[in-house]
Order: sequence, then structure tokens, then C-alpha cells
Amino acid sequence: MIAWKNLDTAASYQKLVSLKDHVDLTQVMQGESGAERVAKYSVPMAEGLCFNYAAKQVDSEVLAALAELAREMQLSEKYEALLNGEMINTGEKRLVLHQLTRGQLGQDVMADGVNKREFYVSQQKKAAEFAQKVHAGQVVNAAGEKFTTVVQIGIGGSDLGPRAMYIALENWARTNGCLKMEARFISNVDPDDAAAVLGNIDLAHSLFVLVSKSGTTLETLTNESFVKNALKNAGLDPARHMVAVTSETSPLAKSDDYLAAFFMDDYIGGRYSSTSCVGGVILSLAFGPDVFAQFLDGAAAEDKLSLNSDPLSNPEMLDALIGLYERNVMGYPATAVLPYSQALSRFPAHLQQLDMESNGKSVNRFGEPVSYVTGPVIFGEPGTNGQHSFYQLLHQGTDIVPLQFVGFSKSQIGTDVDIQGSTSQQKLCANVAAQIMAFACGKKDENSNKNFIGGRPSSIIIGEQLTPGALGALLAHFENKVMFQGFLWNLNSFDQEGVQLGKVLAKRVLAHDTDGALQAYSKLLHI
Amino acid sequence: MIAWKNLDTAASYQKLVSLKDHVDLTQVMQGESGAERVAKYSVPMAEGLCFNYAAKQVDSEVLAALAELAREMQLSEKYEALLNGEMINTGEKRLVLHQLTRGQLGQDVMADGVNKREFYVSQQKKAAEFAQKVHAGQVVNAAGEKFTTVVQIGIGGSDLGPRAMYIALENWARTNGCLKMEARFISNVDPDDAAAVLGNIDLAHSLFVLVSKSGTTLETLTNESFVKNALKNAGLDPARHMVAVTSETSPLAKSDDYLAAFFMDDYIGGRYSSTSCVGGVILSLAFGPDVFAQFLDGAAAEDKLSLNSDPLSNPEMLDALIGLYERNVMGYPATAVLPYSQALSRFPAHLQQLDMESNGKSVNRFGEPVSYVTGPVIFGEPGTNGQHSFYQLLHQGTDIVPLQFVGFSKSQIGTDVDIQGSTSQQKLCANVAAQIMAFACGKKDENSNKNFIGGRPSSIIIGEQLTPGALGALLAHFENKVMFQGFLWNLNSFDQEGVQLGKVLAKRVLAHDTDGALQAYSKLLHI
Repeated sequence: MIAWKNLDTAASYQKLVSLKDHVDLTQVMQGESGAERVAKYSVPMAEGLCFNYAAKQVDSEVLAALAELAREMQLSEKYEALLNGEMINTGEKRLVLHQLTRGQLGQDVMADGVNKREFYVSQQKKAAEFAQKVHAGQVVNAAGEKFTTVVQIGIGGSDLGPRAMYIALENWARTNGCLKMEARFISNVDPDDAAAVLGNIDLAHSLFVLVSKSGTTLETLTNESFVKNALKNAGLDPARHMVAVTSETSPLAKSDDYLAAFFMDDYIGGRYSSTSCVGGVILSLAFGPDVFAQFLDGAAAEDKLSLNSDPLSNPEMLDALIGLYERNVMGYPATAVLPYSQALSRFPAHLQQLDMESNGKSVNRFGEPVSYVTGPVIFGEPGTNGQHSFYQLLHQGTDIVPLQFVGFSKSQIGTDVDIQGSTSQQKLCANVAAQIMAFACGKKDENSNKNFIGGRPSSIIIGEQLTPGALGALLAHFENKVMFQGFLWNLNSFDQEGVQLGKVLAKRVLAHDTDGALQAYSKLLHI
Repeated sequence: MIAWKNLDTAASYQKLVSLKDHVDLTQVMQGESGAERVAKYSVPMAEGLCFNYAAKQVDSEVLAALAELAREMQLSEKYEALLNGEMINTGEKRLVLHQLTRGQLGQDVMADGVNKREFYVSQQKKAAEFAQKVHAGQVVNAAGEKFTTVVQIGIGGSDLGPRAMYIALENWARTNGCLKMEARFISNVDPDDAAAVLGNIDLAHSLFVLVSKSGTTLETLTNESFVKNALKNAGLDPARHMVAVTSETSPLAKSDDYLAAFFMDDYIGGRYSSTSCVGGVILSLAFGPDVFAQFLDGAAAEDKLSLNSDPLSNPEMLDALIGLYERNVMGYPATAVLPYSQALSRFPAHLQQLDMESNGKSVNRFGEPVSYVTGPVIFGEPGTNGQHSFYQLLHQGTDIVPLQFVGFSKSQIGTDVDIQGSTSQQKLCANVAAQIMAFACGKKDENSNKNFIGGRPSSIIIGEQLTPGALGALLAHFENKVMFQGFLWNLNSFDQEGVQLGKVLAKRVLAHDTDGALQAYSKLLHI
């Protein structure tokens, strides 16, 4: 029997609170003790990755309290309920089924009269077959020529995740001979976004993927019109250049305006949709269906690891629990995501949506205000770039910001130079190792300006190379971490009512149905 | 006589502290009161911009306290001292002269035996002449052909600012017929960064700008070698494809490896260097020297407005003061920068460095620990994209995050579509107006999940169009805001000792001179 209850009603949470400031990183990360922690505080992930939390403010006592909290809050049971098709998104009365796009770990889930796993697989198969036809020249433009570029039109979850995944694998695919089509993205309602993208591609050989679950997203429909105008102005037939990814009940589903339509449903939230057709169509077109399948397999394998009922052997649960300790017990307001991989340059922007949109909430799943803080601010840029930028504040600022590093021992492209006895990839890795230690231990200096107090916690996910499978595992890791934190905070992590009010007011501005300050701002902006 | 003193020693700061929670935005932004605030709480900036702070938690009483604090902390006097060449960067014993790259507002500043304004102008002139020769085909590749692409090799301040400025003006320049060369950027020591950029350009027609003040930045020198290898492998002579931007005393200054060298000096910090040759060479090559001159003029005009000794008529001082109230009195830990302009997509990343590297410090300018919080976490993405992402937390999360919006009534490219009675640009502007009001006033709903408590403060900088001049004014606005906040916190905003420890430890890793945890991490990463 599952009990959905607030964090602060858990007896084990009180124990955790009593362990505030329990571990002094500047001490425990020194010498042999530090080396032992690096060896001991590591959990294997899928695809050869590992989650190492040696430089987090934990020890056996804190970990025991975290494990007890996981059990008391029934994290495993709640995840299993989700996998078995329980209505976890209570606000919108929806199942939460994104894990089902990459595997099946629970019972058969029936909804809308169909087996949902079969439904998602059928759509992936449709996307794969379509992509193969495009690659084989069986789906071509009016002149009978192959498409060379694919452009996604979508915003929020229909943009950030797929874009981050494409960027993450573009160089890998080019190097491994499987970059089938280049991808571009149009998202912002700012007309300069669409105009700039369209000005830099070969329209006649471009295929557009229109992504909107409801078929009513203002930005996306506006950009669709923008693109159709451009195609018509170039003497092209838009219906021969566009496919739709939408729900079966949306106005886009049966339209003749599209070469094909691929379906998702209400049980997959936008920010969790990279492994559905929202990511699947463009990634299959760009890299081929096999690469997309490897990406799904990586995510599926990580989903399975998240089932481990031992919290200390479950990388996602452990990451979630430590983050909760940092947020609610230590009181840190933000978390930085710092991948030492240029390919992951937009991965932090995706995680920013994933985390802040899921858990940036003040009422619990029953609509009652909670009396503890929930989701932190998430931000980040790739290292080593960030080192020459905002790391100053991370090292010496007045607030402590917990850090999540990601690093790989091999680059994707493999071209490198040896300067001063080391390759660029070795320099990259040396820097992330050095940063973990600099943050944890600091360094005393008589010149207080050069003094580092340390005690700044970080974890690192380490892998051999950012492959499609590793990327899938990395994505699922963070999705499931966020899910577990939502369970801990007793939130509904799967709705986003906070985005609605702005939409309503924007419509009023456009209808000139305003007064007071809203009217005054509208005038200043010449609307 | 200037007194450098800590914020909490100012009598007027105690007054400000007593005004915590003084203004309820959900009340004052309603109805006529709200419209009056939008009209009243607006300060003109240069280039037709204005800084509107109607939706900040201020009223005449809070503003009076802020103005008194500005006077007591001698913000104007300190800015004047900086302009007159006083040694403001006490930690490194350096003048702070970046404003002198765009105008002269104080006395002649002599250093290193020269008039510094004349020195900066001479370097700009050299960059302008060089750019004109490249555009005119007087500086060409070995085959006598024109260069078409310019690639900056730099990191941190040599990358983020110039890159953000280039992206901000690329579409404007293309539309206005002055995009002379396309620009690319290589920054990360991750070898995949350089390899990907080099794989996507026409090497034979590319000119590289190597930027390192000291001439010793590890990432930049490594990437220089990477690029030189690529040029040699393509049968090209690197010395015919590369210029340097550095200090006169650096090893790069007199080398035959470069077609030309352009100089900055120790009085311009990296994050303040976009208006020096660090930005000037690449922007003059990309857009022509006239466009760069317009950019400088916009910045110069804003610098002049920052001199206004009435804090309530000085947009930079006012923005700084309100930010201080939010950070130190209201206790908000982060600030989001949200430009409603796709062209400003990387502007938040630049401001993240500018702000967090300048004021992310715990000791005052005399090296004494401060007992108040200093620089906040800065993050942001362009709207409307952010609305479909992390705005959920901004609206309904448990922490309040102050917001800085930027909006323009006209797009840069001018291509647009009219859908449902409005253009995309109007939709963009309607959204930013709507968001300000949604954040300020919220909206009561019986369903607590759909309830918005409001009271979330924002300001907006509004302009007609993002032109080179407007961009310069915008850049100077934030630079000077950060400077004034540094004065308020009594920090040295112009050094960055916090980036040093990581560099030292990374060298030890590469020399295999490690033990304990650092050695253990190095092994995990296969270094």
C-alpha cells in the first residue's frame, strides 16, 4: 500500500535534518581517506558509466539516513506504480509512461483501448520506416531529389531535449559515418529565429518536422505558417516537405498538409518526450533508426537500474537523495550541471527544463501548500569554458552551489594534438578531476583573496565515450532522479500549470483587451 | 575623499533593511496604480532604450533609501575615480580602463608611459585598417583569394562576450548588407570543439584570431596548435592565416607566426574586453569597422549616463541598487536574464560571466571577509523559449527569482507572418508584457495547482530594435551595473583569483604529480 506523504512528515527526514553539516569535505577528501572515498562512493550505471559521489557531503551515517528516507517514502514502490500504469499525474489525471517508450519494466499498460508499449513501438517503427525511405530516396522532393536537411519546429520539450540530443551525437555520427541528414531547429516566436534558420538552409532539400502534442501551441503553429510561406515563396509545395508529430486527437493528426504523422499521447510530458517520436523522428532521420534504437537501449538499461530497491546501489535514487539533502537540509538554492564535453553544450538547458518545470512547485500532489523548499535553480555550461567564467563564484562566492560534473575519457571525433606532453582530451579530463578536488578541499592562503575555503560538494558521472547508448543512460538518469525527488517532495512532477497564466494574458494583449499596467507595457512595446 | 567601506557599515543600509517586504507587487501593480507605475518608474537609456522598473518591489520610500545608500557609498565618486585612472583593482594593483576603449569621461589616463585612450584608439584604428584590407582583398591567402570566414580562438572573456555580440548582430548585419565575413569560435580544450568547427569551414579562406592577453592560456595555446596542425595538413601556411590579440609584453606580441598583432593591456579584464581589440578585431572583420564604431558609441553614451549623480535618473546605478535590495534585504539567491530576442541567445551566458566572475567573492577589497551575501547566481535563456521550460519554477516554485527582461518592438530581419491578427513580433512582445504582469500580480484560483501567488519582481529594458548602438548600450548597462554593485559590496570586481587553484591542480594531474583522491579521480578518467 502506497502512502503519498509530505517530506516533513517522515520520521527519517528528522534524522536527516539532525545531520546538517555532518561531513567536512575539506577533511574527508584529504589523503588516503579521499582515495578510499573515490573507490567506495561509486555506483555503476548502464553503458559503462558510473556515478561517483565521493565529493558529496555524505558518510555512512548520512547515507544510512538517506536510505531510510528512501524506504519510508517508498521511492521504489512509487516508481513501480508508475511503471505499472498508475495515475501518477493526478492534477491532469494522466498516466506517466515515458519509460514505456524504451522498454517495459512493469505490467502491460492498457489505455485508450490499446497496449501502450505496443502503441509506442508501432510509432517508432513507423518513424524508422519513414526515415529509411527518406534515406533510400523513396520519399523525395517534387524534383525527385533526396532530402538532405531536417528541421524541427517545436518549443519547450519539443525543442530542448531533441536539440540537446542531436548536438550531443552530431559529431559522433559524422565520425562514425552515420550522419544521414543535418538537423536544424526553429522554436522561438521571435520571427528572426525562423528567418535566420530558413536563410541558412537549402529549402528545396529540407524536410520539416512539426511537433505539437495538442496541435495548438501558438509558437509552433506560427512558425509552421512562417515556414509554409517561405516554401511557397520558393515555389515549393509545403505538403511535400512536412511531417507532423502530434497526438491522435489533435487537428494535425489527419491533415493532408503533411507527408506523414507520428503519434505520441497525453501520458508523455513534453520534457520527457525525447525518447518518444518527438525525439524519435528527427533523430532517426538525422542518424538512422539504428542509432536511435541504441539511444533507447541505453535509457532502458538505466530505467532498469532505477528499480534497484537498495537506494545505495541505485544511481538515480542516490543522486536524488543527495540532492534533497543539499536542498532541504543544507539549504543550497541552486545546482550547476557541468559536462566536460562540448557535445553536451545544450544538455544543461534541457536539464534546466526537465528539473525546474517538473519540481518548481509549491503545492503537493493533493494541492496543499508544502512548508519546505522544492526544486532548485538549475544552470550550467560545458567545462572547461565555465572555468574561465562563473566558476569564480562557485569557488569563492558567499553561497555554496552543489555541482554535477560529467566526463568521458575519450573524445567523439578522435582528432587531437599532443602539447606539453598531453592531449587535449587528457587536459580536459585533468581539469575536471582538478576542479572536484579544488571545490572539495580548497586551499589555505595567507592572502585571503587567494584563499579557497573548499567544502563545496560535487558528483561526477564518468564514461568512456559519449555514444548513443551512453547518452540514453545519461538522459534516463536525470529523468529518474527528478522523478524520485518529486516523490520525496510529494509533488506532481508531471504537470506544468505555472506556464498557463502568461499564455492567457498574452492573448488578451493581442486582442487589445487590457487595461492598467498591462496596457501601459503593451504601448511601450508598440503592440 | 573616497571612503571604501562595507555595505553593512552604512547607516542608510540599516534603513533599507527595515524596508524588507515593504511593497506588495500584487497590490501596487493593479489597475490605475499599476499604469502610473509603468509611466513613472522608467529611466531613459542611450540609443532610445529605457529601463523600466515598475514591477520591482520599490516605492518612493524604498527609492529614497536606495538613493541615500548610493550617496553614502559614494557610487558616483568611485566611478569617477575609476574613470580618472585610480587603481581600483587593488588585488592585482591595476587600473580599470575598459570604459576608455569607447570614450573618455575623466582626466587623461597615463600608464606605461602612454596616454591610454590614445593607445586604445590606435589599436582600434589598426584593427579597422586591417579589416578593410581583408575586405578589399589586400590581405589574402597564399592563392591570392579573399578570406570569407573569421574564427576566434579564445576562452572566457575572449570568447563569451565577442561570441554573444557576434550572434546578436549577425542577422542585423546580413539584413543590412554589412555581413562581411562569417564568424566562428573555438574555445573549449575539448578536442571535439576545434575539430567540429574546423570540419565545417573552408580552411583555405579562413582567418584565425588568436586571443590571449597573457599569451599563456592553456586552452587557447592548445587550440592554436590544433588549428595550425589542421592548416598544415591542408597544405596551408599557418602564418598566413592567423592574427594575434594580446598584450604588448606577451610572447605572442612580436612573433612571425602572425600576420598582425593587436594589443590590449592589463587594465582591461577579460570579461570587460568586448569593446577592446578582443571584440574589435573579430567584429570589425565580420561586420566592418563602422558597425564596430556604432557599437562603441552606444556603449560610450551609456557610460556617460552612468555618471549621473542622481541615482534615480541613472539606469545603471538604479538597477544595481534594486538588485542589492533583492539580494541582501529580500534574500533572493539568483537572478534570471530573459531577453525576448533570439539574437540575444548567448547574451545571458556573457552576463553570467560578467556578473558571477566580478562579484562572486567573499572578501572585501581589503581582503577581509564580508558578513553579507554578494553576487547572485545568474542564468537565462531567450523568451519565449524559456516560457515553455523553466518559467514553471519562476511562477510557482518555492524561491523567488528576480527577473531582468529585455524586449524590442521591431525584429532585426523584418520577415514576418500575420497569423490570427498579429505578427510574430507582436506575439513576442505580447508575451513579455504578459509575463511581467503574471509574475507581479499572479492570479487567485480555487484549484491551488493553478494558483499564482505573484509578488515576483522584474524589470525590463525596452528598445525599438537591437542595432549595434543599442547592443553597445545594453552591454555597458550591465557592465556598469555590476561595477556599482561591486562598490556597494565593497568588493574588488576586477580580479578572479577563484579560477587559479583549479589550473594549478590540473597541471599536477598532467604531470602525474598527485596522490590521494586526485590520483584516484585521474585513474577513473584514464589520464
